[in-house]
Amino acid sequence: MPHIAFAEGLPGITAAFAFRPETAVHMRAMADELLRGPNTLTPGEREMIATYVSSRNDCHFCTASHRAAAAHHLAGDYALVDAVCANPATAPVSDKLKALLAIAARVQHSGRDVTAEDVGRARAEGATDREIHDAVLIAAMFSMFNRYVDGLATWAPDAQDAYDAMGRRMAHEGYVRREPVTP
Amino acid sequence: MPHIAFAEGLPGITAAFAFRPETAVHMRAMADELLRGPNTLTPGEREMIATYVSSRNDCHFCTASHRAAAAHHLAGDYALVDAVCANPATAPVSDKLKALLAIAARVQHSGRDVTAEDVGRARAEGATDREIHDAVLIAAMFSMFNRYVDGLATWAPDAQDAYDAMGRRMAHEGYVRREPVTP
Repeated sequence: MPHIAFAEGLPGITAAFAFRPETAVHMRAMADELLRGPNTLTPGEREMIATYVSSRNDCHFCTASHRAAAAHHLAGDYALVDAVCANPATAPVSDKLKALLAIAARVQHSGRDVTAEDVGRARAEGATDREIHDAVLIAAMFSMFNRYVDGLATWAPDAQDAYDAMGRRMAHEGYVRREPVTP
Repeated sequence: MPHIAFAEGLPGITAAFAFRPETAVHMRAMADELLRGPNTLTPGEREMIATYVSSRNDCHFCTASHRAAAAHHLAGDYALVDAVCANPATAPVSDKLKALLAIAARVQHSGRDVTAEDVGRARAEGATDREIHDAVLIAAMFSMFNRYVDGLATWAPDAQDAYDAMGRRMAHEGYVRREPVTP
């Protein structure tokens, strides 16, 4: 049961967003920019970083929903997302993404854990400063979202179908809430 | 030395904000709403929660700057902010704020650590759902900011004077960057 009185039936972070729209608007816009905005990292790569950090924080709702969003960016390849979460070092992704995932894992524990060697490895694999920045900020942003979702004990659906539908919307429509268009 | 090529001389998070204005605008607006927007928690109380979480994350820049912002909201009472960071249970603040700080400490470690008892205690001390929500989100937001600042190894000034001046601006002008007004 959620810790505070949310509207019923809204899953995960969407219940908290509906409770406090004044802060939600900024979090939605930030997620959209960082995960779907113009970038040399693909949306699928960015959603895999988000899913990996959420899985390390044991946040069920964020892991399941961003896993689905990543898969929808990756032609439905849930197995690839799962391989990244299980062990980035052995997952079939680029060496650059492996190095960025290693930085994200540091940030998930503490920003102070990131070393010059971690960053040097990412740069040696071709990562730009902007890509290193974005990997750090995606990991930091999910350190916030995961805590927000679980700190208020939001409700998470059980059915995988629900997350697949959510992931499809997240991948194709994004994170900014748009009013329905009236004819 | 910062992990990526920042403009020189910008302290802490402001260097990262200048590097990536597309995400900064949303973080600035969120901080302003949550720390300075309309609220039954005073700005001083909210900045103390921010400082307490930052100190638990050992983030020097965020701790020193928000400590100063809190003090500027509290008639210069740095000693009160320091007492909260040292031990909220014995600090001369309200029982409601003590209970909210206890929730913030849980969130700093993991959202999953917040218990129904923690929330029940805050409610028994008079905290509203909105206040509980905001304490959780402030703690979550600083879990992001602290990781962003330290994950990129931003530069932090040594001089306390620098933080006092920053805190004055944060308390009185806020977090949203405004263009200088031209006559």
